[in-house]
Amino acid sequence: MDRIGIEERIKDLSCLRAENMYLKDFLLTWDKTDDEIAAVFEVAEILRGMRESNISSKAFDSGLGISLFRDNSTRTRFSYASALNLLGLKDQDLDEGKSQIAHGETVRETANMISFMADVIGIRDDMYIGKGHTYMKNVAKAVEEGYRDGVLEQRPTLVNLQCDIDHPTQSMADTLHLINHFGGVENLKGKKIAMTWAYSPSYGKPLSVPQGIIGLLTRFGMNVSLAHPEGYEVMPEVEAIAAKNSANSGGSFVKTNSMADAFKDADIVYPKSWAPFSAMEKRTDLYGAGDFDGIKTLEKELLAQNAKHTDWECTEELMKTTKNAEALYMHCLPADITDVSCKQGEVAASVFDRYRVPLYKEASFKPYIIAAMIFTSKFKNPSEKLMEMLKRDRNRIL
Amino acid sequence: MDRIGIEERIKDLSCLRAENMYLKDFLLTWDKTDDEIAAVFEVAEILRGMRESNISSKAFDSGLGISLFRDNSTRTRFSYASALNLLGLKDQDLDEGKSQIAHGETVRETANMISFMADVIGIRDDMYIGKGHTYMKNVAKAVEEGYRDGVLEQRPTLVNLQCDIDHPTQSMADTLHLINHFGGVENLKGKKIAMTWAYSPSYGKPLSVPQGIIGLLTRFGMNVSLAHPEGYEVMPEVEAIAAKNSANSGGSFVKTNSMADAFKDADIVYPKSWAPFSAMEKRTDLYGAGDFDGIKTLEKELLAQNAKHTDWECTEELMKTTKNAEALYMHCLPADITDVSCKQGEVAASVFDRYRVPLYKEASFKPYIIAAMIFTSKFKNPSEKLMEMLKRDRNRIL
Amino acid sequence: MDRIGIEERIKDLSCLRAENMYLKDFLLTWDKTDDEIAAVFEVAEILRGMRESNISSKAFDSGLGISLFRDNSTRTRFSYASALNLLGLKDQDLDEGKSQIAHGETVRETANMISFMADVIGIRDDMYIGKGHTYMKNVAKAVEEGYRDGVLEQRPTLVNLQCDIDHPTQSMADTLHLINHFGGVENLKGKKIAMTWAYSPSYGKPLSVPQGIIGLLTRFGMNVSLAHPEGYEVMPEVEAIAAKNSANSGGSFVKTNSMADAFKDADIVYPKSWAPFSAMEKRTDLYGAGDFDGIKTLEKELLAQNAKHTDWECTEELMKTTKNAEALYMHCLPADITDVSCKQGEVAASVFDRYRVPLYKEASFKPYIIAAMIFTSKFKNPSEKLMEMLKRDRNRIL
Repeated sequence: MDRIGIEERIKDLSCLRAENMYLKDFLLTWDKTDDEIAAVFEVAEILRGMRESNISSKAFDSGLGISLFRDNSTRTRFSYASALNLLGLKDQDLDEGKSQIAHGETVRETANMISFMADVIGIRDDMYIGKGHTYMKNVAKAVEEGYRDGVLEQRPTLVNLQCDIDHPTQSMADTLHLINHFGGVENLKGKKIAMTWAYSPSYGKPLSVPQGIIGLLTRFGMNVSLAHPEGYEVMPEVEAIAAKNSANSGGSFVKTNSMADAFKDADIVYPKSWAPFSAMEKRTDLYGAGDFDGIKTLEKELLAQNAKHTDWECTEELMKTTKNAEALYMHCLPADITDVSCKQGEVAASVFDRYRVPLYKEASFKPYIIAAMIFTSKFKNPSEKLMEMLKRDRNRIL
Repeated sequence: MDRIGIEERIKDLSCLRAENMYLKDFLLTWDKTDDEIAAVFEVAEILRGMRESNISSKAFDSGLGISLFRDNSTRTRFSYASALNLLGLKDQDLDEGKSQIAHGETVRETANMISFMADVIGIRDDMYIGKGHTYMKNVAKAVEEGYRDGVLEQRPTLVNLQCDIDHPTQSMADTLHLINHFGGVENLKGKKIAMTWAYSPSYGKPLSVPQGIIGLLTRFGMNVSLAHPEGYEVMPEVEAIAAKNSANSGGSFVKTNSMADAFKDADIVYPKSWAPFSAMEKRTDLYGAGDFDGIKTLEKELLAQNAKHTDWECTEELMKTTKNAEALYMHCLPADITDVSCKQGEVAASVFDRYRVPLYKEASFKPYIIAAMIFTSKFKNPSEKLMEMLKRDRNRIL
Repeated sequence: MDRIGIEERIKDLSCLRAENMYLKDFLLTWDKTDDEIAAVFEVAEILRGMRESNISSKAFDSGLGISLFRDNSTRTRFSYASALNLLGLKDQDLDEGKSQIAHGETVRETANMISFMADVIGIRDDMYIGKGHTYMKNVAKAVEEGYRDGVLEQRPTLVNLQCDIDHPTQSMADTLHLINHFGGVENLKGKKIAMTWAYSPSYGKPLSVPQGIIGLLTRFGMNVSLAHPEGYEVMPEVEAIAAKNSANSGGSFVKTNSMADAFKDADIVYPKSWAPFSAMEKRTDLYGAGDFDGIKTLEKELLAQNAKHTDWECTEELMKTTKNAEALYMHCLPADITDVSCKQGEVAASVFDRYRVPLYKEASFKPYIIAAMIFTSKFKNPSEKLMEMLKRDRNRIL
């Protein structure tokens, strides 16, 4: 995208009503209006274009972006740090091992103590059903109060880097990948996507990816088919949102227990393992009760349950049944690849290899999506500020 | 504070003799003149004002601030990183676990090896009596020599982020909180502060907070009452400084073994647990001798000793005995709150809750105090440079 | 160096053919032409001069420098972070403990996932013979493909921060130290350097330092003497390169099993311990086979083998045999100093102490060498960009 293209994009952006994102958190895609979702896509594309044209998009001269990860993560960590750096913010990680939280400090106190110079707080907490989203709301409440009480000179905004309910940075990056692949959001209308469970020898994978996908893609008039074996249901609340979305958008949302049904004539397939919602609820209770033997037993049960569905694999045979046998294969990575990362996994090696480049491109959108979420929450008039950065004579690299 | 207010503050600052802080370390408040202490407060307020007015206070285009923490810490880590970021420096942590120190490298060598591009070195070493401050002096000597010998192109300055003797960033932040609360440093004159020990179920808390408080607040003509049970004496050298300060400032410094005496008619109360000086000396020797059984025994003894003084708690009853029953409650946080963070602790939950907002504000001054300590040590004429930053047209956020 | 001096240096640089370094990795010094090596020295001196003259050398407004360390390291970590900071890049560490690599992700995938906004990737992997360099080549291949396939909007360049074959940032810093010490690269011609093994009570020290030294210093017409006990041979491929270099440069490369022969009339001595190549090969195989008992046995054997050569120590007596008894003593640090860091080590305490300042200066060149390697790989016309930074009115410190 050249300067002209960027300017046009900025003009498009200025027609979207995004001002209500100002100083708001980005926790769930379904909390945002269609215009707001569209604005994030626009800003992401503009920031990417600016970087590709060596135009600095540093909107902050100084400032911190706190990261709070309850789980290890390379990609999310790098995507978040990249997004912050692109905007001129510095990442500051709250390693709870190192932190006073271990010394019995409350969320409320910590949230304020780390936020005196925080512009953004990125949180990843996807381990326990019913916990992650609640935790983010508590942090948001704490900094809201801190700002109101004059403790914080500004209100840092939160970005959900994955919780137990939604994974907005993933689902938005996936969608932007689709928009680019099919040449525009309008071309998603009527396309069939198979969001299906797939077998993995590992256990307890979060539900936030399938939930994020059905909660978002149903907004674009797509025919979303959610497939999984019995017992691998996702959260009913999110299914309800998907149903509502598809009704509004003129698409459809169907559930099936057959991977083949879902793949049949699909334009896009997204086969990925996840744990059963009910089992994750049970695990959360067991953790709460500190019942570690119970957890071990549960894990064994779940792995045994998984093992009954090793046939849920994205094979060449299944791919042949998709639209023109050339559906776009998607995954949030890393995938469990049969005979590569494990003996039997989510996808056949030949399928994965054929889609390696699109898969990497899919992932490449995430840093820009995160940056766009931050940008829209920190500037009341994003298009004005983007134009300002475009006009000032400042290269990213000398 | 608006631009006008900031300019006035800068003019006030220009009347203070702070030039001798240039290229000097900030290790103990009592090493600094009254003008120098005042200058740090002024710079802190100015930097805060600039941030609140979205004026960039980036004084460094690049440069590193090394952090060397001998102990875990969220707040100090974040405060230091925030201060560095505010000035345009990047924090670089020397994790001694990861470092060659483990491979028997000397302090002298390490200090030089990490300082080739260091502008500042922040050290927190409060674990062992007689060690922390000495360690800082050794590091300072090493970089001083490195600079003299042409190894380092500049002399990085040290900031004491807490040692065994003093905790200047805490005591200065506490004092700036008092200055703001009472509407000016002149209003501290004649105010009574109760710096008292309080019961905690944990053991070996540093003495640097009470020592820092009596060593600093006695300079402002305050009536400082240090209260603790017998056996919880602080370092005599610091008591001597407090006595000398109060004589000079026209205040008073009294010691008592009664929490009630200290609280009586106090304007400010600072109840906080600490370990007995003599016990910390013994522990240091035991560590030196590698006598870990001895340490375990000592810890047991100390916890038993603490347990004799569970009545040293900041209760509503005690608060009623303070000036107009509305003394300002202070704490460096995190506090041991009865029935919240522990069964019995330093303060009653209702007292702590009532003062939560002032407590958070108290903490909010620390990043600015650290930034001010750095600023006064890196610029010979701080007021001139601050005016320069005020005049240049540069926002923190676009 | 003042502005005039810097300008002259930049003119000298403009006469060197360095454009082929553009977008290339820096893995082995012998992959680079004499002009390219000279260019790195020039840029390093210019960047140092600019910093000393308080001229900002920030060439990047934003951007990331990834670090990938397979081994703990203070100095390398700080040198790399310092170099990045000097140029305006932010270091982002890939802690493989924290990373998905542990979850069976391939090098190819990880390399792309972390590189979406990476300008540079610095890798240290010196543990296993035959592994480190190969690993770097694999990462380079992965990002090359990622760039070609449109996954990465740019090709991050790699810097070898130490591998199993070469240690270019060390050997180049050492050489720049020599150039400064002897007043010009031309004065290195005919100088004798003793790169000798020395006894250490520790085991398995990398061969990359002696290999890097003989592979580089033989290019400057020096008489390089490699001394070690029988059984401590370095890689034959590197010896071959050293022989070829010395033939081209009119110097010499000799091998001996006598420390005394090497020291005799030497202008420079570099006594340092390393492990035998063959033993490191064996260890690599044992690790590959997961034979940890075999590794323990091997370590015992090697320590016993080392112990036969405790007389390989840099003593005052040996120093007396060097040119005018005043050879320059070098070491990459930290050294095993007899009676200081160990009972018996590589060097006598009095020798080490006498050379402490030059040793620290030697180390001080490394951050500038790393920055120069980055600079020459990211800018097609380094002299033009350096002149641009010199001309723009921008201080490092306000």
